Amino acid sequence: MSEKFDRLKMLLAEIEDLERVIALLNWDRETYMPPGGNESRSHQIATLDRLKHARLSSDELGRLLEDLTTEASDFDPDGEEARIVAVMKRDFDLECKMPEKLVLDISHASSEGLLAWRSAREAQDFAAFVPYMKRNADLNAERAEALGYTDHPYDALLDRWEPGITTAQLETIFADLKATIVPMVRDIAAGGAVDDICLFQEYNRTEQIRFGLQMAERFGYDRNRGRLDTTAHPFCTSFGLDDVRITTRVFSNFLNASLFAIMHETGHALYEQGVSPSLARTPLAHGASAGMHESQSRLWENLVGRSRPFQEYLFPRLQRTFPGQLGGMDIEGFYRAINKVHPSLIRVEADEVTYNLHIMLRFELEKEILAGKVEIEKLDEIWNERIREYLGITPPNSAEGVLQDIHWSWADTFGLFPGYALGNVIGTQLFAHARKALPSLDDQMAHGEFNDLLTWLQTNLYQHGRKFTPNELMERITGSPITTDAWVEYVHCKFGAIY
Amino acid sequence: MSEKFDRLKMLLAEIEDLERVIALLNWDRETYMPPGGNESRSHQIATLDRLKHARLSSDELGRLLEDLTTEASDFDPDGEEARIVAVMKRDFDLECKMPEKLVLDISHASSEGLLAWRSAREAQDFAAFVPYMKRNADLNAERAEALGYTDHPYDALLDRWEPGITTAQLETIFADLKATIVPMVRDIAAGGAVDDICLFQEYNRTEQIRFGLQMAERFGYDRNRGRLDTTAHPFCTSFGLDDVRITTRVFSNFLNASLFAIMHETGHALYEQGVSPSLARTPLAHGASAGMHESQSRLWENLVGRSRPFQEYLFPRLQRTFPGQLGGMDIEGFYRAINKVHPSLIRVEADEVTYNLHIMLRFELEKEILAGKVEIEKLDEIWNERIREYLGITPPNSAEGVLQDIHWSWADTFGLFPGYALGNVIGTQLFAHARKALPSLDDQMAHGEFNDLLTWLQTNLYQHGRKFTPNELMERITGSPITTDAWVEYVHCKFGAIY
Repeated sequence: MSEKFDRLKMLLAEIEDLERVIALLNWDRETYMPPGGNESRSHQIATLDRLKHARLSSDELGRLLEDLTTEASDFDPDGEEARIVAVMKRDFDLECKMPEKLVLDISHASSEGLLAWRSAREAQDFAAFVPYMKRNADLNAERAEALGYTDHPYDALLDRWEPGITTAQLETIFADLKATIVPMVRDIAAGGAVDDICLFQEYNRTEQIRFGLQMAERFGYDRNRGRLDTTAHPFCTSFGLDDVRITTRVFSNFLNASLFAIMHETGHALYEQGVSPSLARTPLAHGASAGMHESQSRLWENLVGRSRPFQEYLFPRLQRTFPGQLGGMDIEGFYRAINKVHPSLIRVEADEVTYNLHIMLRFELEKEILAGKVEIEKLDEIWNERIREYLGITPPNSAEGVLQDIHWSWADTFGLFPGYALGNVIGTQLFAHARKALPSLDDQMAHGEFNDLLTWLQTNLYQHGRKFTPNELMERITGSPITTDAWVEYVHCKFGAIY
Repeated sequence: MSEKFDRLKMLLAEIEDLERVIALLNWDRETYMPPGGNESRSHQIATLDRLKHARLSSDELGRLLEDLTTEASDFDPDGEEARIVAVMKRDFDLECKMPEKLVLDISHASSEGLLAWRSAREAQDFAAFVPYMKRNADLNAERAEALGYTDHPYDALLDRWEPGITTAQLETIFADLKATIVPMVRDIAAGGAVDDICLFQEYNRTEQIRFGLQMAERFGYDRNRGRLDTTAHPFCTSFGLDDVRITTRVFSNFLNASLFAIMHETGHALYEQGVSPSLARTPLAHGASAGMHESQSRLWENLVGRSRPFQEYLFPRLQRTFPGQLGGMDIEGFYRAINKVHPSLIRVEADEVTYNLHIMLRFELEKEILAGKVEIEKLDEIWNERIREYLGITPPNSAEGVLQDIHWSWADTFGLFPGYALGNVIGTQLFAHARKALPSLDDQMAHGEFNDLLTWLQTNLYQHGRKFTPNELMERITGSPITTDAWVEYVHCKFGAIY
């Protein structure tokens, strides 16, 4: 038993090494690789992907997992051994259910789709993307059939990104969110507009990065085990629990872009840096799901970074760094500016309130496409109608409408979007719980002290990595399933006060 | 035949991808990796090394190479197909001759040796390093026996780094060099000292890098296919023919360190960037040997960078960049300063004339150790005696003597040092040939124009990658074997004029 488990850990460590190296190849491509390096980099990633896939679906791995699953009664069911076997068995079965031809088709369609999407988006010409969108829709449907499901084909796709979460569960969550957000947006639109002009001044880029990094370290980001670089789109990536890197983008004329991107990516990074060292080089050495990960980026970005208490710490320091721009501003005005709510077309620029509607739209459309209820040729019109219905505004072109996100250019991303909304809900639910456990949290935030919050999150969430599913984690931590109660209360309370 | 060759190329492309990825993992470790990343990085490199080694010694590769070697009469013997098979057969046979235990022992001894060397060097305590040096000597001897040789065990080791070059050939070369250098150093010491104080002023680091990079681009370094970073020790590394990166180190109080390091590494990079694209992802997509590579770094650093003609271009620009430091200087004084000859203890800081003696010393000692003629306990004393004999100076401690180089801390580097001297000799021989072919070369250098020189080098040398051995290349390009004639004439002419 122990010998088999040791062998399993060896195989998994090799797979994990390959995965982390692929992450480095991608990181370098986004940060420092010269343009000429693109072709050889693609070859290198493809080769390592192939080596990884072969190992992830090898007969030996399958046999070991089979044996260890039947013999697993020796293990503590919540212990690392049992969980490594269980999580890996799940990954292995998913990998094996995919016919090789489908894997190749998806990879091929994704490469072609990306190029087609880029030019269609540039030309604001959805019709040019229709054939690719159709194929991607078909391939998502094929994957759902290959993976299998009980209720809804979307379950099969969702489960890849959010293990254990069902379409039905999400539908309840989104219905709650919609019931809160749509009227709220109307009320806010009827109220006075918030002035956020102070954010759109000239801010020195180097100073922005220096300041953002200070905040990241304040939150607890360990730069001995990470670093910050600049890229076209911010992201967080990990080459091991002790090498978790973040990136930001910096605009010289918009303060929020970099400041809150750094806080967001720091949230992801704190999660990865907080996984228990005993899980290093195992498949559990990651966050539990896309949504759980997003819960932490949004928690640190919004529930901490955009909170009123934290402004007591942040704003005076920001004023000292940028006296020309913010010297005459008061804290209330700044707080309102960084929390301005207004219906907008672009998801990644949306405020805390309207953001979830953008996600809901994509969730609905993905489900409907999968159920064959959408004529793809009309997807841009359907998109525009829904945006009008939810937000009261209309995209002037498809680049600001259905073509705005890169995700659908790939043939394997259905089921990923909901994690962005789940993250908001889960993050708020966890934060509400942390506040109860830490009565001085507001005061600590006002002093830029985050040791207690970080410790609470590490103890309850981060250390476990992928040991538990999102639903299991939420039950363990909060004693209840995922609910929107905390989020609804949070936005009513916060934005009720602002507007 | 063609089917087998296609399969061979596929296997080789995978090996090549792994090798380049390992290079990236090492580059990142030296440039941007946070300290915490070290442990997982070691695992990743070890995993990829293992995967690469398994492929490099696989039965399938062996069979393919066997078949293609016997059927190779179909190929043009100088064509890429035949050369790929021949070079790879050689690499494969070398890989297979090494018993697995010896490979592991060498790896183990090298890791331990490195740590022991570091602390012994810091403590200036050669005795502490003796057991490790003994083991490394034994392992080098074991490797020589495993690889096999006809005349001298050193041949077996040398051939790993300089295919086709023999110990006997090197002995002739070093005898020639010694006959020139030892009296020359005495003459120079008897002459007046050169004043190089101008180089040791405060130079802005950012400006140094900017200026060095301009010179690199002037030489022909394509930054769309490369980039410059700073590291503790300068190096050049390649992740594909279109992604060849260089590094430098910058001292704020010594101009030469970065300026000539950049030129040196640019020489390596021009070689790699100049390999024919048809050799991409094959084992020929590298320089022909350590010595051939060094010939190009030294050619661009010394024969171009430190030449009198090029100062006409370089010096006025350097003056404009650093007017406070160099404004009052004249070109002759600067030229003499950057070409100052004086016997010194540290190889990597040695001037053009004395440098080869440092290498000769190591070549002699490695041979003698391998032949069992050296009592390792006394290696530091022997070292000091020879340095005194060759250069007239005595190391005050072993850190500035026998322990100065990292190379002997590893158990697999015997045979590498000679390439550093070969590089000087080969570079000068090639450069003398290029001057004959390009009568306006001096004038072009004075105007910072290097198109003709670079084209000549690309056509004659770079494009071939590893297709030919150093001896084959020199015969093809210069019509003669490697000789010291050009180098001897060069130093007499150049330093005769200066001193």
